Amino acid sequence: MGTVQLIEYADASPEVRAVYDDIRATRKTEFINNFWKALAHSPAELKRTWAAAKEVMAPGALDPVTKELIYIAVSVANGCEYCTHSHTAAARAKGMTAAQYAELLAVIGMAHHTNGLATALQVEVDAAFRVGA
Amino acid sequence: MGTVQLIEYADASPEVRAVYDDIRATRKTEFINNFWKALAHSPAELKRTWAAAKEVMAPGALDPVTKELIYIAVSVANGCEYCTHSHTAAARAKGMTAAQYAELLAVIGMAHHTNGLATALQVEVDAAFRVGA
Amino acid sequence: MGTVQLIEYADASPEVRAVYDDIRATRKTEFINNFWKALAHSPAELKRTWAAAKEVMAPGALDPVTKELIYIAVSVANGCEYCTHSHTAAARAKGMTAAQYAELLAVIGMAHHTNGLATALQVEVDAAFRVGA
Amino acid sequence: MGTVQLIEYADASPEVRAVYDDIRATRKTEFINNFWKALAHSPAELKRTWAAAKEVMAPGALDPVTKELIYIAVSVANGCEYCTHSHTAAARAKGMTAAQYAELLAVIGMAHHTNGLATALQVEVDAAFRVGA
Amino acid sequence: MGTVQLIEYADASPEVRAVYDDIRATRKTEFINNFWKALAHSPAELKRTWAAAKEVMAPGALDPVTKELIYIAVSVANGCEYCTHSHTAAARAKGMTAAQYAELLAVIGMAHHTNGLATALQVEVDAAFRVGA
Amino acid sequence: MGTVQLIEYADASPEVRAVYDDIRATRKTEFINNFWKALAHSPAELKRTWAAAKEVMAPGALDPVTKELIYIAVSVANGCEYCTHSHTAAARAKGMTAAQYAELLAVIGMAHHTNGLATALQVEVDAAFRVGA
Repeated sequence: MGTVQLIEYADASPEVRAVYDDIRATRKTEFINNFWKALAHSPAELKRTWAAAKEVMAPGALDPVTKELIYIAVSVANGCEYCTHSHTAAARAKGMTAAQYAELLAVIGMAHHTNGLATALQVEVDAAFRVGA
Repeated sequence: MGTVQLIEYADASPEVRAVYDDIRATRKTEFINNFWKALAHSPAELKRTWAAAKEVMAPGALDPVTKELIYIAVSVANGCEYCTHSHTAAARAKGMTAAQYAELLAVIGMAHHTNGLATALQVEVDAAFRVGA
Repeated sequence: MGTVQLIEYADASPEVRAVYDDIRATRKTEFINNFWKALAHSPAELKRTWAAAKEVMAPGALDPVTKELIYIAVSVANGCEYCTHSHTAAARAKGMTAAQYAELLAVIGMAHHTNGLATALQVEVDAAFRVGA
Repeated sequence: MGTVQLIEYADASPEVRAVYDDIRATRKTEFINNFWKALAHSPAELKRTWAAAKEVMAPGALDPVTKELIYIAVSVANGCEYCTHSHTAAARAKGMTAAQYAELLAVIGMAHHTNGLATALQVEVDAAFRVGA
Repeated sequence: MGTVQLIEYADASPEVRAVYDDIRATRKTEFINNFWKALAHSPAELKRTWAAAKEVMAPGALDPVTKELIYIAVSVANGCEYCTHSHTAAARAKGMTAAQYAELLAVIGMAHHTNGLATALQVEVDAAFRVGA
Repeated sequence: MGTVQLIEYADASPEVRAVYDDIRATRKTEFINNFWKALAHSPAELKRTWAAAKEVMAPGALDPVTKELIYIAVSVANGCEYCTHSHTAAARAKGMTAAQYAELLAVIGMAHHTNGLATALQVEVDAAFRVGA
């Protein structure tokens, strides 16, 4: 259980309901996941976060599945259980294949591995990697 | 400066030279970046890590640029300065465009943002996100 | 369940009981939360940690609620489920309002967001921010 | 040096200049810190992030210094060098005293300490801390 | 529940079974822990990870218990619940005493504590600590 | 440069000098590393932290080198540059061999690797690992 009670639509303020309505309309589903129902305790933050998510996760120079893979990678490295579950589910819903997931896992493992080594060794950044080099 | 002196090719053991040779042959360049020259203080780990990196970062179900984007995302979340620089450089070398980088930044920002919120709120994972649901 | 069994008062050594007694006297309640009952497996660390917590969390230049807000912020960023729950409860017990919690969430989200961006971009610290500048 | 060249006002697009102008007007200073000049490589993210920062960091149920203390706490736990420097400078500019900073350090140390212990012991959250308990 | 269904021996491919067989032979037990059954969704990563674990955790210049203590320390700092549990169990199985565990906890607490302080203060590395100094 | 000016002995208050004196006497050297000179801005925290460090890092059920290896492991995972340098130097001063360091690196790499995988997969803790199982 979270640090707050979830706010259901029936109990929400008009400001919160407006966000819930837009989530439903944008995603074309009645389902609203727990994250938003918890965040509703901070209506201004709910509104800002949903507006930003809608813009950022839309298709652009990166396709939606790639964006979800990046989201999973960050969430894993930050140790966010909820986000790891929700964005793995989202990636699958948007078309991530089992083969892609298998490779995602391998890259996540590899990156954590060399992050640990490079930090342990405090490796100095090569001049060749510097911008303008 | 790192916690160890970098081991240059001329000073390397045959075991380490064999890895350096393979890095050069695989990447088609004489350049060997500092990470490997530092890791050479642990020859067994150098060998294992390079072998794994070669396999994992090769094209597969995910293309090389996507793999680098995921690598950057993990490295940023883990706060690895060296890895952030080296994989941003690698992503560019493999074709990451400025527009893709701009969106990568936005997704990284968004993911960190909601990671913080979901952890603060200790949001319970929705049944709908559970495997088999 | 934790990595150890909780040590209840009845089963505790005199050294551990002395800490439990002080926790009860200081907080004016019989309740001892699980953290201390688990940490009792390391009696010296239990004693040091409680003594430090008692000093550090007392009112001073910062008021008790502000100290709890900072504690929550660190615990969230470190991904500590137990600490996030226990210090959110403590903050409320000490008077944190719903409006303060709503803004705490917004600042936590914002800070995670820009932490991710600044690390991704490896932004160089402005001379103006340097001490003595 | 960062992963990108900083974008100065003279070289900025109208979209980026508009944000720079608003930063200057809001903060009543010509100075624009490096973070925004780096983030300008992602104009949409620059615009969103500045707009959110302006709203979130304004005085409200929490005063501006308290918000900066929380920001520092998150930035430290996330290991963000830039953010630690910039928000420590901001806290001082907004009135954080030396005594408050001394206590902030103590709380940050304490929170990291018990975060480590609670995670090591995988302490189960007390029923008393659960919402609705 | 995880993001994938666990793959039991009976349902595993020959490639995965070969790894399971080696885990059983190496550890002299029929028991295969959940980590490997989940990772089996990425057979190449399963194979690489097990091969590396077998090499790295074998006795060498560091004894097996010391290696597990280090493994626990990393897992705690990274907030990995599964790894904290599995490696605490492994350390005990390999002979970690209660007194050693009590001191491990104290060192983990201390290290987190000063990590937080040093990062907050952005302490400059002493010349004396530099390699070659 | 840090967020504060270092406080040298000549400029220190009697309370801070007493800690500096004890560091010198305990370590049998005139050298005081930057960490303490920065932390001196919070005299109470300086006193508590030094007193705890002196107790925790003394020989006990774990030998001093093992304690330093654990300290390095935590510092790396937390991304603390200062602590990684200072404790790698301390481990060497206390007798850590090149072969031990090589294996430490391998265990750190391995642990980060499987931390990333286990968190990505959200692997459920095996009943067999539970205390009392």
